[in-house]
Amino acid sequence: MPFSDLSRIRTEAPLVHNITNYVVMNVTANALLAVGASPVMAHAVEEVEEMVGLAQALVLNIGTLSGPWIDAMLVAGRAARRRGIPVVLDPVGSGATRYRTATALRLIEEVAPTILRGNASEIASLMSDAGGTKGVDSTRASEETVAHAQALAARWNCMVVVSGATDVIVGEGTVLRVRNGHPMMARVTGMGCTASALVGAFAAVNPSPVRAAAHAMAVMGIAGEMAAERAEGPGSFQLHFLDALSRIGETDVSRRLRLEQA
Amino acid sequence: MPFSDLSRIRTEAPLVHNITNYVVMNVTANALLAVGASPVMAHAVEEVEEMVGLAQALVLNIGTLSGPWIDAMLVAGRAARRRGIPVVLDPVGSGATRYRTATALRLIEEVAPTILRGNASEIASLMSDAGGTKGVDSTRASEETVAHAQALAARWNCMVVVSGATDVIVGEGTVLRVRNGHPMMARVTGMGCTASALVGAFAAVNPSPVRAAAHAMAVMGIAGEMAAERAEGPGSFQLHFLDALSRIGETDVSRRLRLEQA
Amino acid sequence: MPFSDLSRIRTEAPLVHNITNYVVMNVTANALLAVGASPVMAHAVEEVEEMVGLAQALVLNIGTLSGPWIDAMLVAGRAARRRGIPVVLDPVGSGATRYRTATALRLIEEVAPTILRGNASEIASLMSDAGGTKGVDSTRASEETVAHAQALAARWNCMVVVSGATDVIVGEGTVLRVRNGHPMMARVTGMGCTASALVGAFAAVNPSPVRAAAHAMAVMGIAGEMAAERAEGPGSFQLHFLDALSRIGETDVSRRLRLEQA
Repeated sequence: MPFSDLSRIRTEAPLVHNITNYVVMNVTANALLAVGASPVMAHAVEEVEEMVGLAQALVLNIGTLSGPWIDAMLVAGRAARRRGIPVVLDPVGSGATRYRTATALRLIEEVAPTILRGNASEIASLMSDAGGTKGVDSTRASEETVAHAQALAARWNCMVVVSGATDVIVGEGTVLRVRNGHPMMARVTGMGCTASALVGAFAAVNPSPVRAAAHAMAVMGIAGEMAAERAEGPGSFQLHFLDALSRIGETDVSRRLRLEQA
Repeated sequence: MPFSDLSRIRTEAPLVHNITNYVVMNVTANALLAVGASPVMAHAVEEVEEMVGLAQALVLNIGTLSGPWIDAMLVAGRAARRRGIPVVLDPVGSGATRYRTATALRLIEEVAPTILRGNASEIASLMSDAGGTKGVDSTRASEETVAHAQALAARWNCMVVVSGATDVIVGEGTVLRVRNGHPMMARVTGMGCTASALVGAFAAVNPSPVRAAAHAMAVMGIAGEMAAERAEGPGSFQLHFLDALSRIGETDVSRRLRLEQA
Repeated sequence: MPFSDLSRIRTEAPLVHNITNYVVMNVTANALLAVGASPVMAHAVEEVEEMVGLAQALVLNIGTLSGPWIDAMLVAGRAARRRGIPVVLDPVGSGATRYRTATALRLIEEVAPTILRGNASEIASLMSDAGGTKGVDSTRASEETVAHAQALAARWNCMVVVSGATDVIVGEGTVLRVRNGHPMMARVTGMGCTASALVGAFAAVNPSPVRAAAHAMAVMGIAGEMAAERAEGPGSFQLHFLDALSRIGETDVSRRLRLEQA
């Protein structure tokens, strides 16, 4: 259950190594701390392998990619796979430029991430040349999404999380849907990146990646609902979201959880 | 009018491509989202031209510049001009070091930005070797500023926005002054950078750059006033500012607007 | 006394040049502004020497280090020492990877920082191969820490600040302890980095580095206590912390100060 994962994170404080984008580093680190995990950010090719050696999960995010960062992601990703710790890939903006799409596909091929998390446009861009992204936000949401996720999961032997109003999690022969969350989450930058980081933290403590991903998305969405009830806009939402992540309890989860198995 | 621009931004959600500094990326992205625009940050020389091809405005900011970022700004800036979308340049800290001043001047020469936005010191530094900057904050505010802005606007055929207690907007043969804002805005990092980003969003929907710039500065200042009424310091100011940007209405604008044409 | 330093900072607004990590740049800049200092971030090797020439203190932080940043830290650090302004080094994550430990030691040897500030693990890592860091958080807190700090201070002829539940400041033949602060500070990213930046601001106005460091840690801790009284979690803590830094008064300091000389 989501809350038992959360309890383990709070007890064990798994170290989550992030190679992520400049826009969200602070937000991501604070979300990981709020949920009880230990974040570390390190991207120098000279140290990523050693840092991965200390971590319980690795999160790769191409939101503000450039050559040296891609090199570091490849080295870190391969090291994580050798160690057997979960690797989450967030292909931010894949589909918007060829550089992003090609980098996302290269990371998938060479690292073989455990879990791929993106919005519908990003996930679609990894299927073919169809799609097209408006910035890094989702522009499509349909059952086509499930088909894309299933095809990707089968082709690359990984879990696929498509986030949106309803999050779809595909893998291990199953499809889970999480209907938690709030529209205000789309008005704050880095919420998708935060979701990927939380998926990393949950995967560090739950041996089933598909369960870990679903539980992370549910806890994220529930914290968003709790925050939205108190927020007056996207500024106050951010602080209430971190407060909610840090104090979310078993009752909050059991009362609000909207997790469905297909 | 400022509010009609704001309505268009909220309806059309123009994509604003930012190549900006590490300090403010998160803040800038959130301010653009709060106002209704779609932000994207991308700086790799491999992808900036393609990303510019999707954008309705480009914002260049040299706050934490280095060689590869300058290269990307040049490529992106030229692509934006070819496409005919507005380019805003924020010469952060120009005058503080020769590297910044030279980079700002090079970007002006090679990109020919539509709108230049800085504080009085930064704008003065682009005129001559006079000036000198204390950090990246304004240290001068006088009518000399208007003369500098007019000379720059004439020389480079662009709009010039000098922000301060009174914002001065020069171009298209006119001088506009915006007297909105609050002193607390100077106590939060990145407010100038946010102003530049908002100018980009407004220029994306208003074909008159000088009107767009004045409206952006007015909306920014009004949001600052609304936030200051509720804030107890620079921390709470930040969240109220984003909340205000997202909910600012036609009455707020009409009641508070202090925009004067010389 | 801590408050007289704070008053001088508020009056003189010393320029503090930071070469720091991506995660905390925004937070650090806002904390320096809240306390009354003027922050500037600049890391290009082309400009750091000139920027140091304008500054009253330099803060080096290796939290997200890479080759070009280390080069800039070396150039800036040597320039600061030639000018005689205080240099604070924050060896974030030293002990976690050999790259970080080696870089921290190289900066100590080549720059000879005035003040070294880290947590117990980081400080221990600079002594020998003992230790080991879990992420960048402190995992040890004992009187062994004082011995480490004294040995480092003697060996490198600098002040050493070990932050933790009790902060220990060693140098100039004395040991000071600051018992201010709140556990919630460990739940927010960048609090250690903020402490280092504030130490820089205080060292810019107080000619005794050991006093400056102790006063900075006390003001930081007191602001943390004030914030924790109003916060409902790590999100709201952050804004209350900045608000507290900006309005902390002489009575707050005199009533709450827990500074002891051994």
